[in-house]
Amino acid sequence: MSYKTLPYDRLYRFCLDVFAQYGFSAVDCETITDVLLCADLFGIESHGVQRLIRYHNEINSGVVNRSAAPRIISETPVSAVIDADKAMGQVISRRAMETAITKAKASGIGMVAVRNSNHYGIAGYYADMASREDLLGLCMTNTEAIGVPIYGKRAMLGTNPIALAFPAEPAPFLYDAATTVVPRGKLEVYHKNEKPLPDGWAVDVQGRGSNDADEIIKNLIVKAGGGIAPLGGSSELYGGHKGYGLGIIVDLFCGVLSGGKTSNHLNLEPGRTDITHFFLAIDYALFGEKSVIRESFSTFLRELRESPKADGQTRIYTHGEKEYESRAEKRASGIPVNVKTLREMQEIAAALSLRCEDYFPPDIEFK
Amino acid sequence: MSYKTLPYDRLYRFCLDVFAQYGFSAVDCETITDVLLCADLFGIESHGVQRLIRYHNEINSGVVNRSAAPRIISETPVSAVIDADKAMGQVISRRAMETAITKAKASGIGMVAVRNSNHYGIAGYYADMASREDLLGLCMTNTEAIGVPIYGKRAMLGTNPIALAFPAEPAPFLYDAATTVVPRGKLEVYHKNEKPLPDGWAVDVQGRGSNDADEIIKNLIVKAGGGIAPLGGSSELYGGHKGYGLGIIVDLFCGVLSGGKTSNHLNLEPGRTDITHFFLAIDYALFGEKSVIRESFSTFLRELRESPKADGQTRIYTHGEKEYESRAEKRASGIPVNVKTLREMQEIAAALSLRCEDYFPPDIEFK
Repeated sequence: MSYKTLPYDRLYRFCLDVFAQYGFSAVDCETITDVLLCADLFGIESHGVQRLIRYHNEINSGVVNRSAAPRIISETPVSAVIDADKAMGQVISRRAMETAITKAKASGIGMVAVRNSNHYGIAGYYADMASREDLLGLCMTNTEAIGVPIYGKRAMLGTNPIALAFPAEPAPFLYDAATTVVPRGKLEVYHKNEKPLPDGWAVDVQGRGSNDADEIIKNLIVKAGGGIAPLGGSSELYGGHKGYGLGIIVDLFCGVLSGGKTSNHLNLEPGRTDITHFFLAIDYALFGEKSVIRESFSTFLRELRESPKADGQTRIYTHGEKEYESRAEKRASGIPVNVKTLREMQEIAAALSLRCEDYFPPDIEFK
Repeated sequence: MSYKTLPYDRLYRFCLDVFAQYGFSAVDCETITDVLLCADLFGIESHGVQRLIRYHNEINSGVVNRSAAPRIISETPVSAVIDADKAMGQVISRRAMETAITKAKASGIGMVAVRNSNHYGIAGYYADMASREDLLGLCMTNTEAIGVPIYGKRAMLGTNPIALAFPAEPAPFLYDAATTVVPRGKLEVYHKNEKPLPDGWAVDVQGRGSNDADEIIKNLIVKAGGGIAPLGGSSELYGGHKGYGLGIIVDLFCGVLSGGKTSNHLNLEPGRTDITHFFLAIDYALFGEKSVIRESFSTFLRELRESPKADGQTRIYTHGEKEYESRAEKRASGIPVNVKTLREMQEIAAALSLRCEDYFPPDIEFK
């Protein structure tokens, strides 16, 4: 696939104006754009502007309620449950994490479960919000079921990612990972490149290992069976029961504690996704002098990075490093956008009476 | 290896008397015995009476301080930090989880970080304590470093297990798993059976994949390099960065937030292990009517179990089921104990002026 590199600030302005055309407030446009482009800056293309067409369709079809009126269902000094009223996932999620942060600053900890929401972009964005306030941040979401329990053959769990951020020097720790062996996007990349899937990533409609990305993806779309293995694979040999269990835990916090739906019940009713989320912030001053804790954690991360490398390897990463390096590089030199995505952006612009040409350098061809 | 089956109640009485001989109080003897035998009942032999000899040595050498005076370093309505004063891990951990439970009942959540402790047995025991009080329970511990970061070749992280329990019908959910692909005990089983390790479990001193259990274990003992891969393996292909990151997160909560030491600094000074733990309890009434939440989670677990099975499979488990079934069976028909362990028990009994013959049926041969 071929890519064009677009300047970050122009892409940002384009997204802002797109979401303004749907009728979102200026603040909400900024939120959605910021989450989307954070993914692109981090190098997580699957969750960046590549998703604009999906959001466009969901907003137009009413799956996303652009005049949503989220309600706090219940609240304590350390917790809240929110019904998102089918809001744009990014909008309600930023508010939910802000609520968790406010509670953490007042009570030491804040936990917010959200039901009746939509896709919220990258989980790491919200965990990082807490970290930027010098708190521990944790965030989880369920997603449409594409993960198959070990010894099973029907997708029952979402990719159900867990993100955790914690302040550190020289850069915060930022973990953000699906509890399936890979996210759906990885299968799609193999599919587009016509490469067989690695052994152990996916199972077919009979629950047998499969390397056929095309078949797996098609069957997921029509819910015929099969899907992606949990982290650790489809049996206990490499700990598949662990990834499977982590997926269940994410659904406990998101689908169950929010009073919403678990992965296996998402996207089943027309006009709604029923996605649920969970946000947590902890003021780690609860446990001691913050500068000492931060220093101790920074030292540990440095010791990991500086530990001896395997033969042929030159670097050991800690989580977040790759993303921050990617962000610095892409802010300076632009974001590579797939030409297919560019064409979708043109389509969206036309539908909203915007002109891509007003945003992007003339040497970019939209063909 | 050959096994003898011992009645549960006699084994229980034996352990009680062994720990009484070391000078532990009646309550503490019960705690230690209960945690130990819970592992055997659950079928987790590696953490059961098989560990008696290790505890015996640690108590005698002073690694475990039998007259420990743990101190609460700091405390809030939702948190505490405890210095265990090198207490027996089970004793301080039960108290720490009781503290978390008390706080959760009063404030909705309780978090307790413990430093300067020792091996505490199975993590699941403490998570389950909260679940038996109709709370969500979470428990983590670091352990001596045997896990190698991806792209590394030196063990820097413990098996760093995470346990989470939540009430459900017909039985509670109980997740308890190392963040390494397997715990050390699994390597030892392959070693004893002289079987090559499965690909991807371990790396040698150069950070290359190895199937040689003998070599890996020997090198771990002398800290020559190499060790066990994270959950997901030694590269990113199967998500090794995820297991590696989860191991870091466990050390953040345990080693860092407790003000103690991270995995890579454990067992380095003579006379102490420096192990740290983290305990969390949440009163999930924070999120809604408890019976409704429990029912929703129970339904989800049932849907997973009842989902279609892969070809050749007859059952999909949810976490805890295997352990509860094993417990019921072993309570009724006894606990199989390795003859090597039986010999160690005889040795311990002799050193403590106890007689195994006073506890076990005469038809068990101790040879």
